Amino acid sequence: MTSNANSVNIESEKRGYHHGDLRSALVQAGLNLLKTRAPDAVSLREIARMAGVSATAVYRHFPDKQALLSALCYEGGAELARLQQAAMEQAGGGVAGFDAVGRAYVRFALANPTLFRLMMTAPVDPCDDDATMAQDVFAKKILMENIAALAPANASPASQRVFALRAWSIVHGLAMLMLDGQVPAEDALIDAVITSAAVGVGQD
Amino acid sequence: MTSNANSVNIESEKRGYHHGDLRSALVQAGLNLLKTRAPDAVSLREIARMAGVSATAVYRHFPDKQALLSALCYEGGAELARLQQAAMEQAGGGVAGFDAVGRAYVRFALANPTLFRLMMTAPVDPCDDDATMAQDVFAKKILMENIAALAPANASPASQRVFALRAWSIVHGLAMLMLDGQVPAEDALIDAVITSAAVGVGQD
Repeated sequence: MTSNANSVNIESEKRGYHHGDLRSALVQAGLNLLKTRAPDAVSLREIARMAGVSATAVYRHFPDKQALLSALCYEGGAELARLQQAAMEQAGGGVAGFDAVGRAYVRFALANPTLFRLMMTAPVDPCDDDATMAQDVFAKKILMENIAALAPANASPASQRVFALRAWSIVHGLAMLMLDGQVPAEDALIDAVITSAAVGVGQD
Repeated sequence: MTSNANSVNIESEKRGYHHGDLRSALVQAGLNLLKTRAPDAVSLREIARMAGVSATAVYRHFPDKQALLSALCYEGGAELARLQQAAMEQAGGGVAGFDAVGRAYVRFALANPTLFRLMMTAPVDPCDDDATMAQDVFAKKILMENIAALAPANASPASQRVFALRAWSIVHGLAMLMLDGQVPAEDALIDAVITSAAVGVGQD
């Protein structure tokens, strides 16, 4: 991608895209498509049409559909992290902030069902390296920082990992049960079910 | 189903099926098929072939594929409940028993991925009434009995419902993350992550 991004993209510039902007426009077009259709029904050709460029211009950024889906996963992970960061700050950090981070995960899932499933339920392949990066944004940066701050003082790295996985499990489980219609997607239920006490942190 | 089950099924009897046994044989054939293929790839015609009866004989028990899938969901729910009951008894009941019930849920999911997804992630339609019944076996009989026994003494029905949903979320989340390859399906992780303390019960 780096070499493509650095090369002069004459066609894109003709269309009014500045250097690097076409890639963002294509990702945005992909995210918009995911609001109304399944990943299977997203095509590079249609993304090109939406952005007003040729398929060839798209291929410079995304050699295949897999590359586009990976970029969408990454952007989804970054957006989730932004929302969680904002929720944590709004709640004033600490245990309340950790609760807010978990609840933001569930609300992101309900607001972006297809993107969320692509990010978190696709059997590894589809999201590949970029998904791992996206999860790092979430799991490592936000989740692990919080766990480290809130876990009992004597918690080993291994037990911090268990705390983190427990936190992920509870928010992921509620998100999936609500997305799949097994449990009513009631906003108040999210607040009630997701508490850091359930993860075993913040109780010292 | 009741009237069909009570009617004399001449063809089934010719094939050596006693009254009612054909239905069990068809359900078992369906469960076997789900071990190697997706629900979409299960057909009533193939079920008939496996049981050695005509499609007409199958239609007497299952008028359409939806009816068969519902029966598979129900049987899956009953089997899950049996496994959970056994796990609880083996652990000696109480808080340890509740932990065992949750862990059995995750292990059932890993051992029966397609059936589990059919039961717990299909957007309501596929499993319909029978699925609700199957969940009653699990959610009401086992989960709610345990919650009632283990929840803090002053917990209202509403807060018992929250405890129950939290318990379901954490086991469901871990099951899905492991099934979808987001987290390694390590047996020891199941024991470590699933604890009743995480649900807020058994701490009085």
